[in-house]
Amino acid sequence: MTTDLVERLLAGDRRALARLVSLIENGAPESQPDLARLHALGGAAHIIGVTGSPGAGKSTLVTQLTREFRQRDQRVAIIAVDPTSPFTGGAILGDRIRMADLAGDPNVFIRSMASRGSVGGLASATRDVTRALDAAGFDRIIIETVGAGQAEVEIVRAAHSIVVVTVPGMGDDIQALKAGILEIADVFCVNKADRPGADQTVAELRVLLTLDTQRAAGAWRPPIIKTIAATGVGVPDLADALVKHGAYLRETGQIVARGERQARSEILALLYQNLLAQLDATVGAEQFNQLIAAVAARSRDPYAVAADLARRVGLGLRHTSDVP
Amino acid sequence: MTTDLVERLLAGDRRALARLVSLIENGAPESQPDLARLHALGGAAHIIGVTGSPGAGKSTLVTQLTREFRQRDQRVAIIAVDPTSPFTGGAILGDRIRMADLAGDPNVFIRSMASRGSVGGLASATRDVTRALDAAGFDRIIIETVGAGQAEVEIVRAAHSIVVVTVPGMGDDIQALKAGILEIADVFCVNKADRPGADQTVAELRVLLTLDTQRAAGAWRPPIIKTIAATGVGVPDLADALVKHGAYLRETGQIVARGERQARSEILALLYQNLLAQLDATVGAEQFNQLIAAVAARSRDPYAVAADLARRVGLGLRHTSDVP
Repeated sequence: MTTDLVERLLAGDRRALARLVSLIENGAPESQPDLARLHALGGAAHIIGVTGSPGAGKSTLVTQLTREFRQRDQRVAIIAVDPTSPFTGGAILGDRIRMADLAGDPNVFIRSMASRGSVGGLASATRDVTRALDAAGFDRIIIETVGAGQAEVEIVRAAHSIVVVTVPGMGDDIQALKAGILEIADVFCVNKADRPGADQTVAELRVLLTLDTQRAAGAWRPPIIKTIAATGVGVPDLADALVKHGAYLRETGQIVARGERQARSEILALLYQNLLAQLDATVGAEQFNQLIAAVAARSRDPYAVAADLARRVGLGLRHTSDVP
Repeated sequence: MTTDLVERLLAGDRRALARLVSLIENGAPESQPDLARLHALGGAAHIIGVTGSPGAGKSTLVTQLTREFRQRDQRVAIIAVDPTSPFTGGAILGDRIRMADLAGDPNVFIRSMASRGSVGGLASATRDVTRALDAAGFDRIIIETVGAGQAEVEIVRAAHSIVVVTVPGMGDDIQALKAGILEIADVFCVNKADRPGADQTVAELRVLLTLDTQRAAGAWRPPIIKTIAATGVGVPDLADALVKHGAYLRETGQIVARGERQARSEILALLYQNLLAQLDATVGAEQFNQLIAAVAARSRDPYAVAADLARRVGLGLRHTSDVP
């Protein structure tokens, strides 16, 4: 049924793509064989992740970056990911509306993805949608996150090239960047660079980069690009930096290492989902909750309960055909 | 062998506690039966998590808070958790040294915990060490994190009462706080409150709190406490707020819900660790890496590989005795 959608997607049918993306996004089980097929067909797209503090102007920047890539005659897809938080609803909506002016272009595809209950679920759905867009022949796929929290970092890790966006005058924020997000940056972007303090922010980032002892000698040094997304200033430089990073990954073979890291985390995530499904099938929510309550009440200990549950979902059992 | 350590720990032997904590911290398998026993014996301690941006003065604050609780004749344990990052080494060390002046007090126990390769491993070790300190009769156990990144939030979630520390002039930082960390706060602390802008920071936090529609009517409203940790100003207020929140959790029965949420995440983490161990035992690192490489090279798809691995670790198999 849906394999037909894959054929149409490969033939460039935009509606088939939109429909397949929706099926994937909703986790429809019938999309699984399609996903396996799409995986085999993909691999050509350059996947770009854009993250950074709320208010850094990421959506405008992504809009401009898309325009720049379009001028270079490339097909661009944008996945805007929002791990729903009561605090982030408003700003996003406005940004999405601003993006609407790209929507008329048949070589641009935009999709917003909201939380599906768990970070893991959202990361997995983002990965699957990216897979469809890759197979559909988009040259650049931009995954844009709302904020720079734990969920966002996990989601953006699926990209080849990660842009961390900051703005001038965020001295303390750069401090905060230290705690996890700095390490993932392939390109820094100081947006709203017409504000006072832009050069100081660039200088601070430069100092932080010299402190990053984990980066091996000869390794990629993240460039720091100043942009004014509102007017487009610096956006061609940002596009150049991303193209250069993509080429660097291919030339050094690091694209293979990144692909393997991503495959590893995806497979472990799929195994964990399978574990949860087995838990649901064999133990069920009601009994699981009773066990949780017993552990919380200290009438049972978590180690024994976990060992018992592991046995019940089959962990450690062998197919008789596997036994020598 | 180590059960002897538990007896000595319960009898108040400090060296037995230190040794058991080290065994737990190193994940020594012989500590598992002890942990089950310690779980049954615990439950009286008030577990406090302290998180916030690097540079907010958390270590000094925790030192002062410990002094305050000691003046109230309470036994205090501090677990300082550092999910190692090349960017955070320096600052921490200084803070640890500053804490040394508490070390002479037999009713204060301090332990630093660094990364053990994975966030999950560190969270689990922190939970287990907390368990030992709880059974050993500490009244307040303070889990202090270095930064406020993804790992830190996961670790601090094991606490009953979570303090989020910020400092004046972090307007943009408060924006960043929106993305995940705000929701977990039970008490806000604006430290270095003698700096200009303290009242504005308090006002901004207050506005953010009114936006937090997830908090039910009649639910706990996080108080915002101004402190100057360097001189101790405001620290008694912070201690009062924490005591009040602890009482609130008990009186409303929410302590049960928190305990169950923690038990749930612990049991799921133990199951995942079991899954990884089975993967290692049945497939092994070498073959797993080959499968990863095949998926990255697109000669295999991740869904089929995950399904095959699930079968091999036993997921979905039933003990013959379980079959009706």
